Amino acid sequence: MRENATKTKWRRGEVTYGAWLSIPSAFSAETIAHAGFDWVCIDMQHGVIDYQVAVTMLLALGTGDCTPIVRVPWNEPGIIGKMLDAGAMGIIVPMVNSVEEAHAAVAACRYAPVGARSYGPTRATLYAGDDYFSHANEQVACIPMIETKRALDGLDAILDVPGIDAVYVGPSDMSITLGLPPGMDNGGAFEEARLRIAAACSKRGIAPGIHGHAALAAKHAAAGYQMITIHSDIAAIASGAAADLALVRGGVAGPADKTAYP
Amino acid sequence: MRENATKTKWRRGEVTYGAWLSIPSAFSAETIAHAGFDWVCIDMQHGVIDYQVAVTMLLALGTGDCTPIVRVPWNEPGIIGKMLDAGAMGIIVPMVNSVEEAHAAVAACRYAPVGARSYGPTRATLYAGDDYFSHANEQVACIPMIETKRALDGLDAILDVPGIDAVYVGPSDMSITLGLPPGMDNGGAFEEARLRIAAACSKRGIAPGIHGHAALAAKHAAAGYQMITIHSDIAAIASGAAADLALVRGGVAGPADKTAYP
Amino acid sequence: MRENATKTKWRRGEVTYGAWLSIPSAFSAETIAHAGFDWVCIDMQHGVIDYQVAVTMLLALGTGDCTPIVRVPWNEPGIIGKMLDAGAMGIIVPMVNSVEEAHAAVAACRYAPVGARSYGPTRATLYAGDDYFSHANEQVACIPMIETKRALDGLDAILDVPGIDAVYVGPSDMSITLGLPPGMDNGGAFEEARLRIAAACSKRGIAPGIHGHAALAAKHAAAGYQMITIHSDIAAIASGAAADLALVRGGVAGPADKTAYP
Amino acid sequence: MRENATKTKWRRGEVTYGAWLSIPSAFSAETIAHAGFDWVCIDMQHGVIDYQVAVTMLLALGTGDCTPIVRVPWNEPGIIGKMLDAGAMGIIVPMVNSVEEAHAAVAACRYAPVGARSYGPTRATLYAGDDYFSHANEQVACIPMIETKRALDGLDAILDVPGIDAVYVGPSDMSITLGLPPGMDNGGAFEEARLRIAAACSKRGIAPGIHGHAALAAKHAAAGYQMITIHSDIAAIASGAAADLALVRGGVAGPADKTAYP
Amino acid sequence: MRENATKTKWRRGEVTYGAWLSIPSAFSAETIAHAGFDWVCIDMQHGVIDYQVAVTMLLALGTGDCTPIVRVPWNEPGIIGKMLDAGAMGIIVPMVNSVEEAHAAVAACRYAPVGARSYGPTRATLYAGDDYFSHANEQVACIPMIETKRALDGLDAILDVPGIDAVYVGPSDMSITLGLPPGMDNGGAFEEARLRIAAACSKRGIAPGIHGHAALAAKHAAAGYQMITIHSDIAAIASGAAADLALVRGGVAGPADKTAYP
Amino acid sequence: MRENATKTKWRRGEVTYGAWLSIPSAFSAETIAHAGFDWVCIDMQHGVIDYQVAVTMLLALGTGDCTPIVRVPWNEPGIIGKMLDAGAMGIIVPMVNSVEEAHAAVAACRYAPVGARSYGPTRATLYAGDDYFSHANEQVACIPMIETKRALDGLDAILDVPGIDAVYVGPSDMSITLGLPPGMDNGGAFEEARLRIAAACSKRGIAPGIHGHAALAAKHAAAGYQMITIHSDIAAIASGAAADLALVRGGVAGPADKTAYP
Repeated sequence: MRENATKTKWRRGEVTYGAWLSIPSAFSAETIAHAGFDWVCIDMQHGVIDYQVAVTMLLALGTGDCTPIVRVPWNEPGIIGKMLDAGAMGIIVPMVNSVEEAHAAVAACRYAPVGARSYGPTRATLYAGDDYFSHANEQVACIPMIETKRALDGLDAILDVPGIDAVYVGPSDMSITLGLPPGMDNGGAFEEARLRIAAACSKRGIAPGIHGHAALAAKHAAAGYQMITIHSDIAAIASGAAADLALVRGGVAGPADKTAYP
Repeated sequence: MRENATKTKWRRGEVTYGAWLSIPSAFSAETIAHAGFDWVCIDMQHGVIDYQVAVTMLLALGTGDCTPIVRVPWNEPGIIGKMLDAGAMGIIVPMVNSVEEAHAAVAACRYAPVGARSYGPTRATLYAGDDYFSHANEQVACIPMIETKRALDGLDAILDVPGIDAVYVGPSDMSITLGLPPGMDNGGAFEEARLRIAAACSKRGIAPGIHGHAALAAKHAAAGYQMITIHSDIAAIASGAAADLALVRGGVAGPADKTAYP
Repeated sequence: MRENATKTKWRRGEVTYGAWLSIPSAFSAETIAHAGFDWVCIDMQHGVIDYQVAVTMLLALGTGDCTPIVRVPWNEPGIIGKMLDAGAMGIIVPMVNSVEEAHAAVAACRYAPVGARSYGPTRATLYAGDDYFSHANEQVACIPMIETKRALDGLDAILDVPGIDAVYVGPSDMSITLGLPPGMDNGGAFEEARLRIAAACSKRGIAPGIHGHAALAAKHAAAGYQMITIHSDIAAIASGAAADLALVRGGVAGPADKTAYP
Repeated sequence: MRENATKTKWRRGEVTYGAWLSIPSAFSAETIAHAGFDWVCIDMQHGVIDYQVAVTMLLALGTGDCTPIVRVPWNEPGIIGKMLDAGAMGIIVPMVNSVEEAHAAVAACRYAPVGARSYGPTRATLYAGDDYFSHANEQVACIPMIETKRALDGLDAILDVPGIDAVYVGPSDMSITLGLPPGMDNGGAFEEARLRIAAACSKRGIAPGIHGHAALAAKHAAAGYQMITIHSDIAAIASGAAADLALVRGGVAGPADKTAYP
Repeated sequence: MRENATKTKWRRGEVTYGAWLSIPSAFSAETIAHAGFDWVCIDMQHGVIDYQVAVTMLLALGTGDCTPIVRVPWNEPGIIGKMLDAGAMGIIVPMVNSVEEAHAAVAACRYAPVGARSYGPTRATLYAGDDYFSHANEQVACIPMIETKRALDGLDAILDVPGIDAVYVGPSDMSITLGLPPGMDNGGAFEEARLRIAAACSKRGIAPGIHGHAALAAKHAAAGYQMITIHSDIAAIASGAAADLALVRGGVAGPADKTAYP
Repeated sequence: MRENATKTKWRRGEVTYGAWLSIPSAFSAETIAHAGFDWVCIDMQHGVIDYQVAVTMLLALGTGDCTPIVRVPWNEPGIIGKMLDAGAMGIIVPMVNSVEEAHAAVAACRYAPVGARSYGPTRATLYAGDDYFSHANEQVACIPMIETKRALDGLDAILDVPGIDAVYVGPSDMSITLGLPPGMDNGGAFEEARLRIAAACSKRGIAPGIHGHAALAAKHAAAGYQMITIHSDIAAIASGAAADLALVRGGVAGPADKTAYP
């Protein structure tokens, strides 16, 4: 089976950098697939992307060297199974706020006896190889999101659930539930949470991950994060447009990261 | 943020009239967007409409003055979040039959601390403005359906759940669960329910809403309903076809409202 | 092979009534398929419809008794062949203004030795039967549009081109090229043209056809037209919406036939 | 209402043979619709198929004589309702492992008072007739999957849930949860399960069904199975390609049933 | 009718700046629609975009203030008519190399008596207003491409064809046909052509336009160009990704304009 | 640039075997991409496939080792350019019946100075490499169809047009224009044509190609054909279904090659 190179790097303690896709297009996905990221995530939660186009985007990602990851809309086994069968090598599961929800996320990502994933890797064998079943539980990454105060309150118990490969911090949702405005880089309670999550993961061999942009990457890496988002397709278009217009009209390109949500 | 003009009218005690979309097409949606309705609902439950085409329909509705509303397939936070992120200003949630289900519907429509909606209004900011987060909890309408005998039995407790802006009565499902045939205008127990729901809503400042057609609008308005469906795209095609054929062939156009389900 | 019932009626001198589809949806097409029209036309020229969705609409029309017809975007053999292979039983060809263009239209609709259609009735055999090749030249209707002053000037020569089963008058284009505003029912030069075309067709055994709406059907039939459009999907929605709003708001529904182009 | 001919055959004790669709295409579905199977299943779980294309596939199946069945991605009432409204005559529900899950599956397939299906058979009336509501509870088939050790442990209680018309065995998932490799025809514990399920169904008048391929059909029929899958669209392409290449290159076509999952 | 603000600026002698869309997505188009460009072009020739998605992109562009322009795949009246009917306010026509081809381009963009466009502005009236027909010939921009040595050789005669509002220079094709490598900013014969075309247009009141990127805008404006492309959606993603990776990995972001073709 | 391995084999005098895709699906295309064919052709003429889905199929083919080829609907430079830009490495051009049509086909496939292809290899560089422009004229295969009596009459002159890499014989169209029924293996005048075309190609270093199925491959190879179609996706499904039903019902699987058109 094709190796999940990102998961391998996590095991080695390395930092990985990824891109975030919100545009429903295999063409833009294929462009990103060849750009040099460790992994690329198709966002089916807040991105404008549903199953049928997501499959063509997985196809596009498969032409490059990046690890294809999918954020599903919700912690629901039907869609998690569909995306794994379509060839996703990792699943980011939103809003995992309790031990029960963490168990459910893991179960949906793993075949028995570890989990309860249903067998039928229709496209996954085309992408990853005929021996998919023998290695899928090992290679597929299960990545719950830690993005609420409630998850933070139960953090240790959640992280103790077996089968979690990485967690992904959603800074905006975490901020909101902590009483802060949505943002990528809030201080105060958010900053405490950011540091605490990384530490709690690291001591368990779980790779901590976080949403962001390139300017925050060094800061996150310094805190121990190993899965760091540094690029967003729609943000690149918006900020590129602002920069191009500023260049031509003599103005100043304003910040365009409003589209760079978690 | 763009104002939810329909919600404003409800607060003022005004009656609003809407159209119902079952056809998966931005073109027919755009035609309706300019027709003069207060609001237009994209029906993802019984309409032949899934996410990817629904987004283009929201885009189409946004070119007119109507308030764009979506009925989701089920009371499930993933799809509710996706449609709000795509720019829906109101969500009709089917089959809300208990206090717990009402709480879940509200939670899916509101950011913390009121609810549990995840942050990422990807298209919503394009439609409604950059200050979306600050006003979304106020402007977005949460509209549970009251459409079963069970919901009727627990009506007062359900309506007491904070955060409900309107309810929407599904006459056919209500009729069936009351032992009547599906229909828009049954008498008996359905008529009692129709009146009781309107009254229970009105005394709480909740806008009562109901599925129907133009010929029933006056009756519903007289009962206090403030959200009244008077048009269906697919019914207009079916009844228009029957009328055109009747005109040409000398027959009589039969009723074509069989497609005008809740 | 499945009989082209519309063509049979034309041969018998009967009048046929049809519906016009501009909405890209198999669902609305299927609703119309069961409404009772003799034929239904998928408009790929001015309708919002391209190949891939048109095939699903042909599938939908095939579930009813109507004859499925397609208006292609232009007199181009590639798309004519694709739509016939997809199961269309008649092709309306826009802007046939010369003898050469009429020959081209016929050639694209017929297999050798009569024409130059390429063989590969992929979906047509599923719809019409395994003996499609033996009967297609006989059953498929080739329907050039006569819709310009130039076509009118060369009318007799155009109609003498062998292989034309019907012609279709586009009232708006005919009006414009005659110096009149676009419209369904202009008088003057348009009225003369309308009568002259019907007469010129009838004496050659060609079925004259014309775009319009139900209120004009009797007038067209009286002039000898045998292929009369009386319904438009998008016009039904627009006029239905106007009527519903008028009923509710006490106003008067204005004419909604602006969407009912040729 | 159109009769569910497959369900009728089950009631008569007859064996039915079906085809399995994993390719998202109405064209391949229409080809299969005319091939002569008793029923055809659109696989929305492991097939590469989501709602919008599944509706066009139901349209395609409706042009043939086969009974259209859908396997939904998960035991979730929203998607079950959508597929029934779109014209499915039977629903295969994955992973029904408990009495509660069986009740939920039945409830989603039946109108009150038997179940909790919401009313709005938008396309179903076009396919099955205007009297759909009166007969749908009788004609629609509810088909839970029995595919885990857990379901096997609770088999009798699950099968005693009223409203189950057939069950469908997923050999690979059953094998995995029994500690065997995924496969269509494992012996040992799987073989015991296969026989036990058929027997338990038969004595209750429930039609036992099972995934497989043509070479296993006689074996399954001998065991009492009445709903037997003998064809897979994607497997036919893969095995056909292997056979064609073997013929030309003088090699031997290897087994191509790796794509023939449950 | 909605004014073509870009055409108005050209008449006033102003310079306009535009964005180029190659990604088949209404979401990225809507983001660009609100960015502040004078016009935005949907590229159906070299972009990965066909009719059905292009219509949703026109819908998206219509929510902003930019003028929506389409580059069609070829100088063919069918697709030019379809895009104008869908609401394009300008058409860029590739490879106009002769007077005859220029006449054909103009004819496809104008109603009689000036041209031969067929009437049926299905979506255009929704976008631009009910009085579309009266003003369309005036408001719609016909923009032939001058992009080959052959066109350059016949430049004056081509530009003398009545009805040309602007021309658009394709630097890569012009370069190739002049014996140079494809590029945005070749010197030599290309530079001569660039200056000569601008001059020849300006003296006739035709707006000269050219493909490029923001860094070339000042140079083009200095040469008299009034329609200057400064942004490409796919190039923004590719260059943004390169820059983000360079920032994180300490490398240098290379030029990413390989995707910024004409 | 990625080598066109099929073209290389032709130059070496080797025989290549290919598969034919009529189903609009990247999933079935990806399955075929990994099956072991030398080349795979996406049929946009008689297949149920238009541009937008064809691009995803090219993406799918690119994951395997086969050479991706496209048959366009007609000899039209717009669609030929679009498919080359999307990554096709060869273009089959239908109905090339004259020297002029052969020149047009070549011109559409080649950049200046050899041809007139417009520059903008949007997806082609992603698939084939950044140095695409320098090698495309050499690597891309231009493959006119010889499929009519008229082409046969002018065969030598057509084949003398520079730039033809291979020709593709359409047996059914050739048969029809020779007065025979459509078929893959007619004798008489068709057989003479089959042999004559192969010989005329071979002496010019052009690879002769022909549509067919696996059982005819040896015969075609013996005649000198180097590009031989041996598999069709839709035929595999139809014949597989017939075989599976025959196995189960004890009947005999009839020939299913009716879908295997040229």
